[in-house]
Amino acid sequence: MIYLAPEKDANFLLFDVFDVEKIWREISDFKDIDREVVEAVISEGARLSNEVLFESFQEANHEPCDWNGGEVKAPKEFKEAFSQLTSGGWLAVSGNPAFGGQGMPKMLGCLIEEMFWASNASLYLYGTLTVGASLCIDSHGTEAQKETFLPNLYAGTWTGAMALTESHAGTDLGLIRTKAEPQADGSYQITGTKIFITSGEHDMAENIIHLVLAKLPDAPNGTRGISLFIVPKFLIDEKGNLGSRNGWASGSLEHKMGIKGSATSVINYDQAEGYLIGEENQGLTAMFTMMNYERLSVGLQGLGSGELAYQQGASYAKERLQGRSARGPKNSEREADSLLVHPDVRRMLLVQRAYNEAGRAFGLFVGMQLDLAKYANDKQAQKFVDLLTPVAKAFLSDKGFDGAVMAQQVFGGHGYIAEWGVEQIVRDARIAQIYEGTNGVQAFDLVARKVMKDGGRGMLDFVEYMRSTELDPVYLEVLEENFVRLISVTEGIVERSKTDPDLSGAVSADYLELVGLVCYAWLWARMALVAKNDEFGQAKKETARFFFSRLLPKTLSLEQSISCTSEILMDFAEESF
Amino acid sequence: MIYLAPEKDANFLLFDVFDVEKIWREISDFKDIDREVVEAVISEGARLSNEVLFESFQEANHEPCDWNGGEVKAPKEFKEAFSQLTSGGWLAVSGNPAFGGQGMPKMLGCLIEEMFWASNASLYLYGTLTVGASLCIDSHGTEAQKETFLPNLYAGTWTGAMALTESHAGTDLGLIRTKAEPQADGSYQITGTKIFITSGEHDMAENIIHLVLAKLPDAPNGTRGISLFIVPKFLIDEKGNLGSRNGWASGSLEHKMGIKGSATSVINYDQAEGYLIGEENQGLTAMFTMMNYERLSVGLQGLGSGELAYQQGASYAKERLQGRSARGPKNSEREADSLLVHPDVRRMLLVQRAYNEAGRAFGLFVGMQLDLAKYANDKQAQKFVDLLTPVAKAFLSDKGFDGAVMAQQVFGGHGYIAEWGVEQIVRDARIAQIYEGTNGVQAFDLVARKVMKDGGRGMLDFVEYMRSTELDPVYLEVLEENFVRLISVTEGIVERSKTDPDLSGAVSADYLELVGLVCYAWLWARMALVAKNDEFGQAKKETARFFFSRLLPKTLSLEQSISCTSEILMDFAEESF
Repeated sequence: MIYLAPEKDANFLLFDVFDVEKIWREISDFKDIDREVVEAVISEGARLSNEVLFESFQEANHEPCDWNGGEVKAPKEFKEAFSQLTSGGWLAVSGNPAFGGQGMPKMLGCLIEEMFWASNASLYLYGTLTVGASLCIDSHGTEAQKETFLPNLYAGTWTGAMALTESHAGTDLGLIRTKAEPQADGSYQITGTKIFITSGEHDMAENIIHLVLAKLPDAPNGTRGISLFIVPKFLIDEKGNLGSRNGWASGSLEHKMGIKGSATSVINYDQAEGYLIGEENQGLTAMFTMMNYERLSVGLQGLGSGELAYQQGASYAKERLQGRSARGPKNSEREADSLLVHPDVRRMLLVQRAYNEAGRAFGLFVGMQLDLAKYANDKQAQKFVDLLTPVAKAFLSDKGFDGAVMAQQVFGGHGYIAEWGVEQIVRDARIAQIYEGTNGVQAFDLVARKVMKDGGRGMLDFVEYMRSTELDPVYLEVLEENFVRLISVTEGIVERSKTDPDLSGAVSADYLELVGLVCYAWLWARMALVAKNDEFGQAKKETARFFFSRLLPKTLSLEQSISCTSEILMDFAEESF
Repeated sequence: MIYLAPEKDANFLLFDVFDVEKIWREISDFKDIDREVVEAVISEGARLSNEVLFESFQEANHEPCDWNGGEVKAPKEFKEAFSQLTSGGWLAVSGNPAFGGQGMPKMLGCLIEEMFWASNASLYLYGTLTVGASLCIDSHGTEAQKETFLPNLYAGTWTGAMALTESHAGTDLGLIRTKAEPQADGSYQITGTKIFITSGEHDMAENIIHLVLAKLPDAPNGTRGISLFIVPKFLIDEKGNLGSRNGWASGSLEHKMGIKGSATSVINYDQAEGYLIGEENQGLTAMFTMMNYERLSVGLQGLGSGELAYQQGASYAKERLQGRSARGPKNSEREADSLLVHPDVRRMLLVQRAYNEAGRAFGLFVGMQLDLAKYANDKQAQKFVDLLTPVAKAFLSDKGFDGAVMAQQVFGGHGYIAEWGVEQIVRDARIAQIYEGTNGVQAFDLVARKVMKDGGRGMLDFVEYMRSTELDPVYLEVLEENFVRLISVTEGIVERSKTDPDLSGAVSADYLELVGLVCYAWLWARMALVAKNDEFGQAKKETARFFFSRLLPKTLSLEQSISCTSEILMDFAEESF
């Protein structure tokens, strides 16, 4: 198997497409960031991914995690790689400088994250949950909590985990039953059982910091009665030393379809000591401030899987000799031509390229809006983040999975055999569509919460923004057609929803795909504009042409299917399913 | 997990939609087949599937096949189930009555096969290869070969396997290197290594009969120099008794993404004794006469996976309580409503129903054409078989996989966990898109061989045939629009291919999907017409409406993407991939 992190594309996007030097100059926290430093960080992240993280990508598949009486071992090949990841400061890239973080832009973080996800998703899960926990504590914790937890989380000597789901409560967190009893010393006793806890227990860190959703006694029903608690594996004394084991343990590990190197625990909390983070009954709010980051990250995971799969498919297609070109032998001294003479193999590879490269640009664009919102207090950017995050999570992970399946198809029978590795990518990629809110939940969030909230205004503003950017004139006409389509579809949904409460759910999946396609078209027109005439630029231009010709037409059929009423779904008798 | 074979739908399609009683009355071999007997066969096949085969569906996943020094053990739970499958005569259903077969119509076989595939694809693979081998021997073997092999294959005391692929030669069989040396006694010595040999070695039968593609000394190059040989595991004396072990052995088992209960061997042939079947150098022709049956069967496998997955998704959606209806609580005495109140969950389930039920009808229609071609010497029917078989193989298996992924999505996080079983269906379903000719190969076969062969005439004839059937008037207009679209796209491809040899490969995948959608629309209009007003019929009518409203519009975008030139694919520089 091969993996080469897309370093060149990263720099192209940062400096040529999005012109970050100009953006960063205007943000005081970023004004001293130097292009050379950024390129060096990307290059070092790429090296770590290609040479260290990727080395145990397949191992984790053969020797998954081990559970023994509550003790959990991560794959042994992971330890050295994880220690290189943490000691290199990679979990601190976007962290708060006041507590040991590097305070780098999220845009840079996005590119690095994709590489880590691609080269070893199971391994990076131990890291990303740590980044997520530190972000949550940084946003909602007390100064004392920040001082205790952030430096250790940034250093990766402690890792993080989020404990939300219970067996009967996944999407609908209002249903959770885990209890938090206030204690005289200001702490809480947490009791209950959580499932699907990624990195909840393992042997790669000195301490594991759980963020647990639980209900106070007499809390209001539903989501307004949920609080968030920090619940470490080992209690910490006032000097910051680790003390006795807290009252929770891994009850078992889940046997999953993929990401087998990632330890997914059932965790039983039995009067475990916990500390409130943020306000009582405001746990979901605290969780949701980090949600935009986490969801974008899961989108990048899907993209990473898509990129990794593409590289396998492309390399196999170049080497595998099978059949002849329809235009006569291209390789007449050998007994067959390479798979690349077959148009349908090229189609599969170009679909993957077209979605991966636009997906990278899209993730980066959302990262840019996160930066502008956080560091430049840009209100418009925050609106774009809210609007586009569900699209980034769902569309990138959907296309990542589809791309992995396509790469597997390029391999033919070998794609189904474990030793070739591509089937593992398919199994791994699948999770990104499911966790951190299923892609159906993302689509519903986009339509029912984000678009409806302001009667579609935010989406129209975003279309105006897209129109205001500089685009390859070749694609202006078809883009404008699609902008108009997106506006008319958006307005139609807002209008029809007034009398049809089920409409937003009925059209959400198709609408999200429509938005994703239009955004990608816009980004292809931006990329094509600045692409040079060298080999790299030529490939960009050809891929843009492919996207507009072969993939964008799907917006036609989406417009039509979105025009249907919800009755087509809701009239079907429940007992007939 | 649950599985209930779709008995009612089977009878609806046979008797209400396709009116087989009328068709069979006019075929002398079938004229005495009685409706009651057919219903009893379906009912007994359903019982075997639901109660016996399905019982070991998950087991095969936990305890896959075992290889030990060339000896291969199938999962131990399979043995009793396989013996019930064979002793019930189920491998003889479509077999030649002169040698112990039952000579039943393929239409009935299609429905039974789907149930076997759905309830246990890994297990049924031991059966279907046996059916395939017996079909090949029946079509091309000598009388003596038929007498020796057919009764034992029909009884399942011996099983079959096909040995085509070599590590460097999959789709392009012209590249194979396995040699066959003629011997003085008229037999051949076979030497070479074959891979991906499903059921090539196992412990569930007294003998295993390989059909092996190999090259005679001085055979012409490429596909015109391939011959087919019967190569049994144990040699057979003149009285039909088993003798010494033949010169081949399983070198190893493949570790696959799914169908883990199916033993997939590397087989090393070392001067193994083989017997020519059919003519020298005509091996591919012999293989290809059974290909239409095998490919249809793999399509039915995809359908079976899709149906099995749907049943899991629907049952989970009914039971799982999560969230509330957008129209207010439906189930106010419980803390949440079922997933079925969410329009997007219904959408996913209806997509599955719409493709599964139309897929079943389409498979049955192709089965009908096979029957008419074989038993009524109907030339038109043979043309339809040739034209539609690649569509049945690829479209049914694509939609089966997509449906399994959607059912998994309905489960949320539980869909990713092995114990719930639905992730296994996804992994199992994936193979049907790959083996027996990848779906890309099927699409190329459809366009470059079938449609081009007669300048599109065959497809136009098929459209005329569809037009001539009785259809629900509600859908006539949109159907006619799509018939016209299919004709114009077909004519366009034929015309443009004259100057563009790569065009057929460039548009093949999209064209196959277009054909599949139009065929399914036609079948939905037939089904809607004869559906009654009871619960079953109402569900049919609602699903038809869903298909036309939400799925058929994709033909719009396919028409547009098919209009692109092949340059969009072929101009991309090889080194840039």
